[in-house]
Amino acid sequence: MIPLSKSRKKGLIIILSAPSGTGKTTISNEIVRLLPGIKHVVTTTTRPPRKGEVDGVNYFFVSESEFKRRIEKEEFFEWAKVHGDYYGTPRKFIEESVKNGIDVLLTIDVQGGLSFKKEKPDSVLIFIAPPSEDVMKQRLYGRGTEDEKAMKKRIKTAEMEMTHIKDYDYWVVNDVLEKAVDEIKSVVIAERRKVKRFPPGRKRS
Amino acid sequence: MIPLSKSRKKGLIIILSAPSGTGKTTISNEIVRLLPGIKHVVTTTTRPPRKGEVDGVNYFFVSESEFKRRIEKEEFFEWAKVHGDYYGTPRKFIEESVKNGIDVLLTIDVQGGLSFKKEKPDSVLIFIAPPSEDVMKQRLYGRGTEDEKAMKKRIKTAEMEMTHIKDYDYWVVNDVLEKAVDEIKSVVIAERRKVKRFPPGRKRS
Repeated sequence: MIPLSKSRKKGLIIILSAPSGTGKTTISNEIVRLLPGIKHVVTTTTRPPRKGEVDGVNYFFVSESEFKRRIEKEEFFEWAKVHGDYYGTPRKFIEESVKNGIDVLLTIDVQGGLSFKKEKPDSVLIFIAPPSEDVMKQRLYGRGTEDEKAMKKRIKTAEMEMTHIKDYDYWVVNDVLEKAVDEIKSVVIAERRKVKRFPPGRKRS
Repeated sequence: MIPLSKSRKKGLIIILSAPSGTGKTTISNEIVRLLPGIKHVVTTTTRPPRKGEVDGVNYFFVSESEFKRRIEKEEFFEWAKVHGDYYGTPRKFIEESVKNGIDVLLTIDVQGGLSFKKEKPDSVLIFIAPPSEDVMKQRLYGRGTEDEKAMKKRIKTAEMEMTHIKDYDYWVVNDVLEKAVDEIKSVVIAERRKVKRFPPGRKRS
């Protein structure tokens, strides 16, 4: 008889990417709320904390000089400068979680997702697509926080990103939120049951 | 923008295998009851219908000479003679369902599952394992329908089957029924969202 040992296995790295206005923040919060054994990757940033944001929960807040030091020490899987602030994905946080059998969920742009997959080929890449271009535009305009020019740029970026669905492992359409969340949950549960990842004798439960 | 067409795609072939006493019948009934868009493959048999069994629902009932004619015409994906009766998996039923975008669920022994995978490499093979050898034995003895010798043979077969988990795509432990059912449901939902199976522009929903 094959031993069905209960030894805890390595966690999964789940990467969610989506064009702006596709609802990836809502979705990723729902996944972590509903699915045991998975947690958000906390990003490191030089952006000052907003009201209510907690260090180590929403972000790891560091100074710019500290951030640059970490870049040089290759402490980030990937990092980017957005509107003058730095954002980085801390290597240690992910590696320790995974080693301890905790799945980590990372929302990251398409470019980041693809470079992540290169470095960690067994990460699971999930693309969240808007149901249509119209819906995406409505959602973006609905925010009302940006001018026409910025909006056009976002839409162009979204269109570029959509051409990379083919490089992802799974894709989900965010038409009905509950359905999209359920589908992504299912992907995580299914990946946990893959023979190639967790062969018998190395049961995960 | 990538067109997210609503055209219905090919159905999946989902194969469940499990040693005797692992609860595969209960599980497969639950899957079909709970998950829209999937149905059981109806097996063809020469066994006479039992009380309440309906032709075309529980089995397709045919005579032995008709069954042999169908073997010669290669109308079965695979067939077997068990306790004097023939059982076969009808090719046409599966191919028509899949063509019409309906997923089909097939419970079949390990040998059948592996030969199926050879002929249809994109089928999804799921192995259902008992939580332990003891539990499997208890479940088998609990049936109380077999003598010691038949029982030992079944256990030996089960042990052989367990060595083939490595050849399956997924494996699920039937410890808590609801959990096993949920995991298999998740595998089906995840497979429906695989980019390789259903690239954008060929949306399934």
